[in-house]
Amino acid sequence: MRDVQSGPSDVALAIDRVGVKDLAIPLAVRDRAKGQQHTVAQVDLSVDLPAEFKGTHMSRFLEALRDMDTTLDIESCRCLLLDLRHRLQAQSSHLCFSFPYFVEQYAPVTASPALMDYACFLRGVLEKDVVRLFLGVTVPVMTVCPCSKAISTEGAHSQRAVVRMEVQCQGMLWLEDLITIGQESGSSPVYALLKREDEKFVTESAFSTPAFVEDVVRNAAIRLSAHSKIKGFRVEVESFESIHNHSAYACIDRLGLDHCS
Amino acid sequence: MRDVQSGPSDVALAIDRVGVKDLAIPLAVRDRAKGQQHTVAQVDLSVDLPAEFKGTHMSRFLEALRDMDTTLDIESCRCLLLDLRHRLQAQSSHLCFSFPYFVEQYAPVTASPALMDYACFLRGVLEKDVVRLFLGVTVPVMTVCPCSKAISTEGAHSQRAVVRMEVQCQGMLWLEDLITIGQESGSSPVYALLKREDEKFVTESAFSTPAFVEDVVRNAAIRLSAHSKIKGFRVEVESFESIHNHSAYACIDRLGLDHCS
Amino acid sequence: MRDVQSGPSDVALAIDRVGVKDLAIPLAVRDRAKGQQHTVAQVDLSVDLPAEFKGTHMSRFLEALRDMDTTLDIESCRCLLLDLRHRLQAQSSHLCFSFPYFVEQYAPVTASPALMDYACFLRGVLEKDVVRLFLGVTVPVMTVCPCSKAISTEGAHSQRAVVRMEVQCQGMLWLEDLITIGQESGSSPVYALLKREDEKFVTESAFSTPAFVEDVVRNAAIRLSAHSKIKGFRVEVESFESIHNHSAYACIDRLGLDHCS
Amino acid sequence: MRDVQSGPSDVALAIDRVGVKDLAIPLAVRDRAKGQQHTVAQVDLSVDLPAEFKGTHMSRFLEALRDMDTTLDIESCRCLLLDLRHRLQAQSSHLCFSFPYFVEQYAPVTASPALMDYACFLRGVLEKDVVRLFLGVTVPVMTVCPCSKAISTEGAHSQRAVVRMEVQCQGMLWLEDLITIGQESGSSPVYALLKREDEKFVTESAFSTPAFVEDVVRNAAIRLSAHSKIKGFRVEVESFESIHNHSAYACIDRLGLDHCS
Repeated sequence: MRDVQSGPSDVALAIDRVGVKDLAIPLAVRDRAKGQQHTVAQVDLSVDLPAEFKGTHMSRFLEALRDMDTTLDIESCRCLLLDLRHRLQAQSSHLCFSFPYFVEQYAPVTASPALMDYACFLRGVLEKDVVRLFLGVTVPVMTVCPCSKAISTEGAHSQRAVVRMEVQCQGMLWLEDLITIGQESGSSPVYALLKREDEKFVTESAFSTPAFVEDVVRNAAIRLSAHSKIKGFRVEVESFESIHNHSAYACIDRLGLDHCS
Repeated sequence: MRDVQSGPSDVALAIDRVGVKDLAIPLAVRDRAKGQQHTVAQVDLSVDLPAEFKGTHMSRFLEALRDMDTTLDIESCRCLLLDLRHRLQAQSSHLCFSFPYFVEQYAPVTASPALMDYACFLRGVLEKDVVRLFLGVTVPVMTVCPCSKAISTEGAHSQRAVVRMEVQCQGMLWLEDLITIGQESGSSPVYALLKREDEKFVTESAFSTPAFVEDVVRNAAIRLSAHSKIKGFRVEVESFESIHNHSAYACIDRLGLDHCS
Repeated sequence: MRDVQSGPSDVALAIDRVGVKDLAIPLAVRDRAKGQQHTVAQVDLSVDLPAEFKGTHMSRFLEALRDMDTTLDIESCRCLLLDLRHRLQAQSSHLCFSFPYFVEQYAPVTASPALMDYACFLRGVLEKDVVRLFLGVTVPVMTVCPCSKAISTEGAHSQRAVVRMEVQCQGMLWLEDLITIGQESGSSPVYALLKREDEKFVTESAFSTPAFVEDVVRNAAIRLSAHSKIKGFRVEVESFESIHNHSAYACIDRLGLDHCS
Repeated sequence: MRDVQSGPSDVALAIDRVGVKDLAIPLAVRDRAKGQQHTVAQVDLSVDLPAEFKGTHMSRFLEALRDMDTTLDIESCRCLLLDLRHRLQAQSSHLCFSFPYFVEQYAPVTASPALMDYACFLRGVLEKDVVRLFLGVTVPVMTVCPCSKAISTEGAHSQRAVVRMEVQCQGMLWLEDLITIGQESGSSPVYALLKREDEKFVTESAFSTPAFVEDVVRNAAIRLSAHSKIKGFRVEVESFESIHNHSAYACIDRLGLDHCS
């Protein structure tokens, strides 16, 4: 049967990335407390394609994914990147797994346990025989507006905000480390389950720690800078302002140009 | 050229609704302050299909839409419903236009003007020679938690919430009427532009009017019930809680079964 | 500590549904081939609230969810509905779990295995001591246009379409049953992994079975009508037309008014 | 009234970008055929913030947007970037307007006119007194699979795909130029309104021009490279495969590192 893909290309241009996008699979990820947890990921896989070939072989991405170790971690990502490069006879390979990650949180006074979910991703790039891995987490927090508190007789507007971090890893980094950094950067963490005593504590604690998006992004950046396993980072904060119909936004980017390829 | 659609159906089942979905068009809508405003709508159009025909003629929906009066209002909707029924030789027809609608708001103290956007829709049904029209608006508001305020030494968590209303119209109803009802039902309206004096006012005013989603949904329902141009309504409130990563939700449905078809 | 929620309501209106929305949790669901599978669900829970109470107690929804049996099925849904009604001292309760469900598919010629994902939901209503359960599945299929095939010298436009089904269950119904019904209703099922021999088969097989959205919706409706475990159904087909920038759409609704509450 | 924002920062870190996000406004954009057209945009605005200031002044972004020329073009973007830098006493400023843009298309045989919508954006960066402008367009096209056509007795799977382009402008560039490049790069353009004669033409024409995502991305890249007003570009093609539940994807990036800041 004819292999059209391996034929010559009409236009002699190299393609940076070609592959599959928006696949969904169940998988396991490493969990600091329990060893591992089950979740579901959305997956993108790609390789480069030299100027002389018409097309890549898309089904091989699916075979590589099917044959990958079912626990997603640094090692299985590294293997998959090498496997993609080999199966597709490519020079470079890229992968990205996006998934919700669940952590048991305890309410601050009653210690009632409940699961919180965090949107995460693990992104990997293999180029010139070097593998670079990037970890991403979105952490919801509460922000209390310092200006509103300072100028109002009582009260202050507060809202849910998200801290989005992407970091280049240097060795093994726990998602929990990034989640903690996010939680510590706002006026208060958010929780799945709060009883009245907890709600009183969270309200008063947040009210005593007002923070603009500018404060939150700096709080996170200073912590990310100080972490020994983090080589570079980008942190964005988006606050869904309760007095407006738009967001307040701040970003500090120390990922460098390294992550663009 | 063969007309496959007009051929016999393999399975003799009547189809409730068949048509086109997710079209985008620019159009004008009636504006209480300025006569009309330009916006952009996402459009769904459908008709019924008797058991004996294989298919409808999709291009006729596009022709009807192209030939429609460019100002969307009760009258142009009624005409389009009749035109669809006629062109497609159908018994019933449905339409839905979803669009952002802009209203100039004035900040409460400085009176600084700025545009606020509201997600709206106009839905129409023609069945048994009767046209029914439904208007929908989503109004963002601020909610301050009554429980958090009552139990905390100072402060109270607040957040953005949305009031989603769908009403069956009896005659001409302004989107502005529904927007006002939404705004009056929360702890405070939200604004596009607030200077410091305004922010102080909004904070204090919201803080003095705490409201659960249950309060907001009842406040809106009582106003919707009292409006002479509203025959039936459904109102939903979703509050993007600032202490949680999930929403609080409430719904009062007085649309009846009438809207299901 | 003051219980504001249990205080009197300012507006004496009963609320149809009040609760929590957009929670995420990991859970297990029944799997016909493997007994059960791990997935991740988005959860909405609500109860009614009588006119005399100011508010419901939101944290109890979280406690009920935490204490629920970790395998989602008809029995655990029934228990959760009863538990919600009891904990919240309500008359009625509602739940909805939305989750991706994975099924191993075999390519039609090479029999290469790969996982396909289907967006599913399980919705439950407890009213007047009666529990009703509704199952929903979205099945992607391929459609080849009968008109395009009939009028063109060669070729015919094809595209991905989705068959969205919601059925009221009568006893235990497998998601796999609904998935099969969806797959059999289009021009061809879609697959995660196809080798060249498979792609030839799928192309030729789809090309020999052209189907409008009208055909697909009727094919599904006739199969759903005939299933002994299905009491009522609604089926929608949306085809992401490859020659247009909008969708073709068809719907047959035999759920009745029963599902509205 | 106290100006908290102008106070000293707790953490002495410069912030790359701080501002507002997800504002919606109506506006006019230049239209090659009609002079201008009305549309609706989603807007993001930001500036840098030196290490010594606690916060920016968010309301000034809204004032700048309100005072901007109501027709969006290269000149009004340049003015807004300068105005933001001035009002916020910043070194750099960023803006992004995302909007649907409508172009009248004629069916290929009957010449029936109808509007097609394209998702577009205009992004601007002012840094070190240099303004750079980037234009983005997403063009839907039809792709017919060359492999499926070559190996099958008859037929070939086709699907809707999108060509996403972002280019750095050198002088005035029409959105229509980018749209034409996108349309010429696939197997066929897509249309809003096609009569049977048109559908026959589109089917046969697409069938005679099969194209992988690799072909489409190269076809677009070669045309973008040759355009005198385009300084750099990135083009991505995503094809919503009709035989799969995932996308095929290809990307050629010649924007360089220039666009990252």
